[in-house]
Amino acid sequence: MMKLIRDPRQMHLFSAKARRAGRTIGLVPTMGYLHEGHLSLAHRARRDMDITVMSIFVNPAQFGPKEDLKKYPRDLKHDMKLAKDAGVDAIFYPSTEAMYPDGYKTYVGVRELSDILCGRSRPGHFTGVTTVVVKLFNIVECDVVYFGQKDAQQALIIKKMAADLNMPLKIKVMPIIREKDGLAMSSRNKYLSPGERRDAAVLHKALLLAKSLIRRGRKAPAYLVSRMKDLIRKKKSARIDYIDIVDARDLSPVKSIKGKVLILLAVWIGKTRLIDNIIING
Amino acid sequence: MMKLIRDPRQMHLFSAKARRAGRTIGLVPTMGYLHEGHLSLAHRARRDMDITVMSIFVNPAQFGPKEDLKKYPRDLKHDMKLAKDAGVDAIFYPSTEAMYPDGYKTYVGVRELSDILCGRSRPGHFTGVTTVVVKLFNIVECDVVYFGQKDAQQALIIKKMAADLNMPLKIKVMPIIREKDGLAMSSRNKYLSPGERRDAAVLHKALLLAKSLIRRGRKAPAYLVSRMKDLIRKKKSARIDYIDIVDARDLSPVKSIKGKVLILLAVWIGKTRLIDNIIING
Repeated sequence: MMKLIRDPRQMHLFSAKARRAGRTIGLVPTMGYLHEGHLSLAHRARRDMDITVMSIFVNPAQFGPKEDLKKYPRDLKHDMKLAKDAGVDAIFYPSTEAMYPDGYKTYVGVRELSDILCGRSRPGHFTGVTTVVVKLFNIVECDVVYFGQKDAQQALIIKKMAADLNMPLKIKVMPIIREKDGLAMSSRNKYLSPGERRDAAVLHKALLLAKSLIRRGRKAPAYLVSRMKDLIRKKKSARIDYIDIVDARDLSPVKSIKGKVLILLAVWIGKTRLIDNIIING
Repeated sequence: MMKLIRDPRQMHLFSAKARRAGRTIGLVPTMGYLHEGHLSLAHRARRDMDITVMSIFVNPAQFGPKEDLKKYPRDLKHDMKLAKDAGVDAIFYPSTEAMYPDGYKTYVGVRELSDILCGRSRPGHFTGVTTVVVKLFNIVECDVVYFGQKDAQQALIIKKMAADLNMPLKIKVMPIIREKDGLAMSSRNKYLSPGERRDAAVLHKALLLAKSLIRRGRKAPAYLVSRMKDLIRKKKSARIDYIDIVDARDLSPVKSIKGKVLILLAVWIGKTRLIDNIIING
């Protein structure tokens, strides 16, 4: 029987009991509206760990004042069915008031890494993310936490934070799960009209273009970015937020494609901001 | 045999082993140069818990650029003797490089509470404190942490942070330990010349004056503060940083002495900044 737990103290008791029994706990933090990407994390947690907890919490602290907090898609009933089928043992589904009670004041931030790339377009976003995940890690007292590579910058920031703060847990980052046309799975894909949905495939196509140019010896980031921009601009509904090529270890700028590089992009398709990325061994 | 542990991973292994054996762990975080105040925390931890860990770390992140980081008194050998006599099981004594390796980027802060009182005179101080204690809590994986009421604002901020971040531990705050003339014990008392040392007793005397005025029905904070200021200004070496009377629960200003109030002060005695406080049930 999968449990649905709303109260943070109840969640902590559930974990404490499992821990006392010597069981290992995996956590899959999500904002719900589950897709195959989330479920791949749950499957992996179920394979690795004794107990799999999935959190579903649309975290206001990581949305900007003009962002899509209110319209972010939600469907707990469907999520519960999917989570149960994926072998999740407990869903942690707290209220906003339980997570951020009146007078809440604490934040956790990671300097520099949070101000670049998506952080530049979404000020405060990553501080909202790192703050909520620290809370979730403490409530669930998990041994391993699973994140998706789709949010590459987020995964890197959380890894950095966990290491800097000496957190007694491991972070595992799992591959991006894609639709047939290459579009990275995202709850926000739901916002797209049928025409936008077709255009959205261009994000991944641009990444593949860069990859094939690199394979053919083109190593100048500026050239690669300009070719990607040209491709994306052919789609009427697309407006580029950023495209960048950075060191995959620390998001620092690279002058040439050498070692493990991360190509990231954020593109508005109509009113929907989508992100994607690829790691390349140059 | 008391252990001296320098490596954070070794410290974590020590705790993990104790936890697996079902032992409870108390942590006494200090910056060393131990006095009776610190030792009272260790004694309490030893009474309450199976294992007592004391950390000794002069945390650069909580010192301002013009503050006394370099000259802060240190005496590990003497500290070890005192800690051993107090029944401490392990001293965690990390290097600065182990706590803040190259590329360290993460911080934990508490809004509002960190910007008032001592935070106004020492910008960034409390963020340095909350960051290092989160690291220590995670490394030691302690069940209970002991702090002294002498640093009343610090204790309140750390309690708030631990609650906000759902940390799986308890914070205990123990009474101020004083010298015979009332001076609150502090490692920084060492800085005082004999004349300054005599003058320094005025901090506690000012607090007792306020207390006696309140007992005699004087309830206006401004009046109490002005009487305390008059008393302190009689000492040549004294320069007042701040005196404030606040709600003891959340440090908010009070208009009258009612309920549990906290009277705090920070006073420079020569080149040494000292703090003290008293809780009064008005």
